[in-house]
Amino acid sequence: MLTPSEFTAMHRPGEPFVLPNAWDLASARWLHAAGNPVLGTTSLGVAVAAGLPDGAGVTAAETLGLAERLTAASIPVTVDLEAGFSDDPDEVGAFAARLARLGVVGVNIEDSDLEGRLVDPDRAAAKVAAIAAAAPGLYLNARTDPFWIGGDADATERHAESVARARRYLDAGASGIFVPGAIELDAIAALTADIPAPVNVLVQPGVTLRELADAGVARISTGSLLLRVALGAIDAAVHEIRDGAFAPDPWTPDYATVAGLP
Amino acid sequence: MLTPSEFTAMHRPGEPFVLPNAWDLASARWLHAAGNPVLGTTSLGVAVAAGLPDGAGVTAAETLGLAERLTAASIPVTVDLEAGFSDDPDEVGAFAARLARLGVVGVNIEDSDLEGRLVDPDRAAAKVAAIAAAAPGLYLNARTDPFWIGGDADATERHAESVARARRYLDAGASGIFVPGAIELDAIAALTADIPAPVNVLVQPGVTLRELADAGVARISTGSLLLRVALGAIDAAVHEIRDGAFAPDPWTPDYATVAGLP
Repeated sequence: MLTPSEFTAMHRPGEPFVLPNAWDLASARWLHAAGNPVLGTTSLGVAVAAGLPDGAGVTAAETLGLAERLTAASIPVTVDLEAGFSDDPDEVGAFAARLARLGVVGVNIEDSDLEGRLVDPDRAAAKVAAIAAAAPGLYLNARTDPFWIGGDADATERHAESVARARRYLDAGASGIFVPGAIELDAIAALTADIPAPVNVLVQPGVTLRELADAGVARISTGSLLLRVALGAIDAAVHEIRDGAFAPDPWTPDYATVAGLP
Repeated sequence: MLTPSEFTAMHRPGEPFVLPNAWDLASARWLHAAGNPVLGTTSLGVAVAAGLPDGAGVTAAETLGLAERLTAASIPVTVDLEAGFSDDPDEVGAFAARLARLGVVGVNIEDSDLEGRLVDPDRAAAKVAAIAAAAPGLYLNARTDPFWIGGDADATERHAESVARARRYLDAGASGIFVPGAIELDAIAALTADIPAPVNVLVQPGVTLRELADAGVARISTGSLLLRVALGAIDAAVHEIRDGAFAPDPWTPDYATVAGLP
């Protein structure tokens, strides 16, 4: 099974790997069997699967449960902690340490609050430092949200704020920086130039892996995309069945393939 | 919330409704929000999501758990019991009664065993009778597997065996009959002609809803299809991301739509 240090070594600026995000054991087993050596989790998926709101700090138990199921199934995983499920850095560190003992290879922690506002960077950095101290082996991906969160800031301000926060979190012990959002390629290149660590972005619609590599990206996450793709696909299938004839897609696995999942 | 008798009234030969089968709370919430008034479960999905084998009689707890989550979320559901998770008809009846108390609208029970062989119809009928006695309000869909299971039988033999078993289960108290498998349209029409109750078939690739209506079908289940479509779609998306550029599909919902699921 992939170790945290092997996962860390996968982060090479300019040679990005795709990290698919699973939301339950079924999606994780499928993605892992399809040849993805390591998966992320998506907090939206965990929340929807539990019937709870996303980003509200209420899915700690479900997040831990998913990490338990994935590690028990020998599926290497890095876990989305939202904002750490607590305002107390010690509690956030203890949660990360529990995950580390399960055998996860990394965690993500974000710097916006339950209302979707950027929190004070010192508060976010304190959580990063607590995780780095309590679970030093994990790849610690610090997510900074100036591009993710709307508002009045222009691209220059978002860039400056993202870079300042990134440096703050790297000083606190982060391994790399995740800047989610739909971001122009030249803005991504500017971020990787100014952030002295591996940079992780979301899949950008219409942008190729080659272009993201040239922009200096180290990791490409799917975030909630695969969950949303899955839901859209079943919606489309039901409509096809209702409106005419269902035509099987060559990507759709047969019963035996799914039943035989390792 | 849909009642068992309203669900029963939905079964009209020649006017089939599409019953999508969900495998977890996320897929169920999505399908229900998309306007499907009632859902089935799929034992393959429950098994894969639990990391357990399908059709092996080992997912009783997970099946009950999913029924609890769906009914708690006010999602009308009919539950796939495989072969009832027990060889003791009384235990099968007690399980169905528990589901009825949760508020499910129906159950499915099948007449093949853990090795995928047809069981003695008297044994299967005893389970049907036990469910009918213990949970009399539920729509009791008895699945008969001569078309589902391979082997040497030709179409005429499969038809005769299916009809004989169907009549046996209807005598025991079944509400309707489910004949899974890929079945020619004229063979479906022959089944609905000879089975004096609503007939349920699986989605047939390339066959329209209109054709199934004309063949006398009352209900069209998706079985494991939607789970498999979902898994195939995420596989395709990851390959698209790796090999070129990801192009959003108009069916893919945005973050806010999924986060705002009721």
